[in-house]
Amino acid sequence: MTPGVQPIRVAVLGAGTVGAEVADRLLTRAAEFESRVGAPLVLAGVAVRDLDAPRTPALPRELLTTDAESLVLGAHIVVELIGGVDRARELVLLALESGADVVTGNKALLATHGPELFAAAERVGAQLNYEASVGGAIPIIRPLRDSLAGDDVQRILGIVNGTTNFVLDRMDAHGDSFEDALATATELGYAEADPTGDVSGLDAAHKAAILAGLAFHTTVPLSSVPVEGIERVTAEQVAAGRGTGHVVKLLAICERLTGPDGVEGVSARVHPALLPRDHPLASVRGANNAIFVQASDARDLMFYGAGAGGPETSSAVLGDLVAAARRHVIGGPGLAAAPSSGLPVLDPGVVSSRYQISLVVRDEPGVLAAVAGLVADLGVSIETAQQTRSGVGGTATLVIGTHRAPEAALAAVVRALSGAAEVEQVAGVLRVEGDRPKDG
Amino acid sequence: MTPGVQPIRVAVLGAGTVGAEVADRLLTRAAEFESRVGAPLVLAGVAVRDLDAPRTPALPRELLTTDAESLVLGAHIVVELIGGVDRARELVLLALESGADVVTGNKALLATHGPELFAAAERVGAQLNYEASVGGAIPIIRPLRDSLAGDDVQRILGIVNGTTNFVLDRMDAHGDSFEDALATATELGYAEADPTGDVSGLDAAHKAAILAGLAFHTTVPLSSVPVEGIERVTAEQVAAGRGTGHVVKLLAICERLTGPDGVEGVSARVHPALLPRDHPLASVRGANNAIFVQASDARDLMFYGAGAGGPETSSAVLGDLVAAARRHVIGGPGLAAAPSSGLPVLDPGVVSSRYQISLVVRDEPGVLAAVAGLVADLGVSIETAQQTRSGVGGTATLVIGTHRAPEAALAAVVRALSGAAEVEQVAGVLRVEGDRPKDG
Repeated sequence: MTPGVQPIRVAVLGAGTVGAEVADRLLTRAAEFESRVGAPLVLAGVAVRDLDAPRTPALPRELLTTDAESLVLGAHIVVELIGGVDRARELVLLALESGADVVTGNKALLATHGPELFAAAERVGAQLNYEASVGGAIPIIRPLRDSLAGDDVQRILGIVNGTTNFVLDRMDAHGDSFEDALATATELGYAEADPTGDVSGLDAAHKAAILAGLAFHTTVPLSSVPVEGIERVTAEQVAAGRGTGHVVKLLAICERLTGPDGVEGVSARVHPALLPRDHPLASVRGANNAIFVQASDARDLMFYGAGAGGPETSSAVLGDLVAAARRHVIGGPGLAAAPSSGLPVLDPGVVSSRYQISLVVRDEPGVLAAVAGLVADLGVSIETAQQTRSGVGGTATLVIGTHRAPEAALAAVVRALSGAAEVEQVAGVLRVEGDRPKDG
Repeated sequence: MTPGVQPIRVAVLGAGTVGAEVADRLLTRAAEFESRVGAPLVLAGVAVRDLDAPRTPALPRELLTTDAESLVLGAHIVVELIGGVDRARELVLLALESGADVVTGNKALLATHGPELFAAAERVGAQLNYEASVGGAIPIIRPLRDSLAGDDVQRILGIVNGTTNFVLDRMDAHGDSFEDALATATELGYAEADPTGDVSGLDAAHKAAILAGLAFHTTVPLSSVPVEGIERVTAEQVAAGRGTGHVVKLLAICERLTGPDGVEGVSARVHPALLPRDHPLASVRGANNAIFVQASDARDLMFYGAGAGGPETSSAVLGDLVAAARRHVIGGPGLAAAPSSGLPVLDPGVVSSRYQISLVVRDEPGVLAAVAGLVADLGVSIETAQQTRSGVGGTATLVIGTHRAPEAALAAVVRALSGAAEVEQVAGVLRVEGDRPKDG
C-alpha cells in the first residue's frame, strides 16, 4: 500500500452479471487500481440477497453480506448494481446522504428518479456517475457531458438495446419472422427469459430519457417518451425495407426542435425505423450498440461497441469508480450537473418524420387514387407508392412512403385510412430516419 | 451576467481555421457558455501575427493583438492554436507558470514536449486539456483517460489523418495512382499546399505518441515511433488488396506487448496496412477519422467523426474550455495525469505483424521454391503466394503473404530477398492488421 494514504472503501451492491465482475476486478487488479488512483481501493463487501447463490466469477464468502445498509454506511464509494427501482433508490439515497459517492448502471432508476438523485448528490457534494447506464462499455455519458459541453447537440440516434438489434439483424439477414428471431436470441443468450422490457422498447426508452436530459441540459421524464417496440415488425416490412435500400433498427431518438408555435424544446422517443443502408448505424450488427450524435460544430460523431455483457459493462463501472476514487485523493467537488437549459419537452405530435405506411386494400381500380386523395386532404404528401397483388380474397398490399410530416398528421392519416371503405387494414407504420434534417 | 460571479478571461492564441471559429463562438454564444459554466466567459483578446490578414469568420479589430505575452498574462484560460512547436511551447509554459489553464490542439507540441508541459501544469495545479489534438471533433482523449481508467487498453488502431485517408480512399474507389489521388485531394482542399507532414505519416505519428502515452499511462517519445508514409503505396498494391478482400489504410497503431525476453512494454508506430473489408475501420471513407480501441473488458470500441475542419475542431477546443472554466466556478484541482505505469517503449523489432511482400522476380521455373526456402530459413512462414507474369523483360510479380512474424525477421527477409539472384526487386511491403491478436 502507498504509505500515508487512506484506503478507499468500496461497497458493491448486487453480485449479478456485472456486480460479480466488478467485485472480482477489485480483488484481482488491486495493485493496478492503486497505481491509477494513488490510493488503495478496498472492496469492503458485496451485498447480496442470497449468500449461497452460484456466481460467475465466484466471490469469497466472507465478503458477502445481506445487510446492504451497514455496508453502504461504512463505504466511501457505493457501486449500485442491484437493478430495479425502489430498493435501488433507497440505497443510493442512503449512500449519497451519508456523503458517499455513487456509481450506478441502473437506467430504470435514473430515468425515473434521476432529478431527485442528482439533487441529493449536489446537496452533499458527492459524485453520481452512471456511464454504464447507456451503451454498456461504450463511453457516451462523459463525451456528451464533457467533450461536447461547448457544442450544441442537435440530434441523437441510438441503437441502445442489444437484444432488439440482434433480433432485427436476424430478421434482416435471414428473413426470419420476429418470433423465430426472438427464439434464436433466447437460445443464444442474447434475450432474457422474459424479454418484454427489451422488445417493448422500455429499456431503450430509459436510455433515451437519460441521453436527452444530458445532451440538452434539461429534464426529460420517462413518461414523456413515446415508445413503440419491435413486436409488430413483420418479415414483410423488413423485406420491403431491403428492397428500398433500408434496414429496420430500433432507435432511441433525441432531438432539439422548434414547435409550430415557435417554442424551442426537445423530444425523446423510441420506435423501429427504416435507416438507409449507407448510414453508419446501419452496419451495427448483432447485439452491438452504437450512438450517432449530430452537433452544430462537431457534425456527425459515432460511438460504437458492446452494449451489454458482464465484463464489458464492468469496464464502464470501473472507469466511473476510478474517477470517483481519484477525487478522494486529489480533492475537488462532486461533478455537478451543468445548469439547466430549461428547454421543455415538446408534445410528441409536433415531431416530424417520413413514414412508410403498409395497407391491405381492395384489389380494384381507383383505390390508389382514393387513398392518395385522402392522405393529401390531411396535408401529408406522398413520395412513393407501391401496390402488389396479394392474391388473397381480392386484396392487394399498398405501401405508401410520405414526405416529412408531423406525428399529429400521421395519426389523423391512420385514423382516416382505417375508416376508409377501400382499406381493409392498416398493416403497419414505420418511420424513416437517418436522412439529413429538413429534407423532403 | 450572473450577479456576484467573476467573469473568466479567455485568451485565444492564433486566428487560423480553428482559432477564428473558437473566438467567434465565444462572442456569439456568450449567453449559452455562461449558462453552462455558471460564470461569463469573456474573450480577452486574440493574438495574431498580422492584424490585417483576412479571417473566416471575421473578428472585431479591437480584440486582435500582436502582444501574445501580455494577453497570456492577463488571462485565466489560454487557448493555444498557433501551431508549430517552439513559440507555442514558450507561450504555453508562460501561461501555465502564471497559473492559467491551457487548452491546446497542438499535437506536435504535445508529442515533443508533453512531459515538460504536464509537469509544469501539475506544479501549479493548472489544467492542460488537449482533446482537439487527436481526431478533431471526435472525443477520444477523455474516453481514454477517464472512461477507460478502470480497464486495460491492449491495442489502438487509428485512422487519425484525414488527408491520407482521403488519398487512400480515392486510390481504392477509383483505382487512382498516389499522385493523381493527392492532386485531387489538393484540388478539393483536403490536402495542404505542402502535404509532406500528412503523407509522410508525421502528423499521424504525433497522434500515435499522444494516444499511446495516454492509453498505457506512460511516456512515448515521438522519436520512438517508427513512421512510414503513404508515398510509396502503389495502385497495384491497392488493387491486390481489393483482390484479397482488404483495403489499404494509414494506421496509427499503439500496442501493449511482451518482448521476447518477457519484458512488458508498449509500442507505437505508423504505417500503411491492409485491413479486412469487414473491419469497422475499413468503412471509414473520405477525410473522416476513427479510432478503434481494444480493451480487456470493454473489448472493441470505435469512435468515429470528422478529424479536421475549423468548426469541427473548435467543438473539441470549446469542450475543453468549458471543462476548464467550470473548475474556476466549482473549484477543485487540475486534472492531473494518472500516475505512470512505467511501461517501457519496446524496440520496434519485437513488434509482430503479418506481411504482404510484393516482389519482381525472374519469370522462370523454381523461383517460388527458391524464394519460399529463403523466407523459411529466416523463420518466417508463408501463408499465401501468388505469381503473375508481367510480360516485361521476362519478369513476373510474386506477392507473398506471411504468417505473423517480428519486424526484425521481416527486415532480415527483405535484406535476403534483395540480395537473391531470383529477385529483381522488392517492390513493396504492407503489414496486414485488424485480425484478432495472436492468430496466424
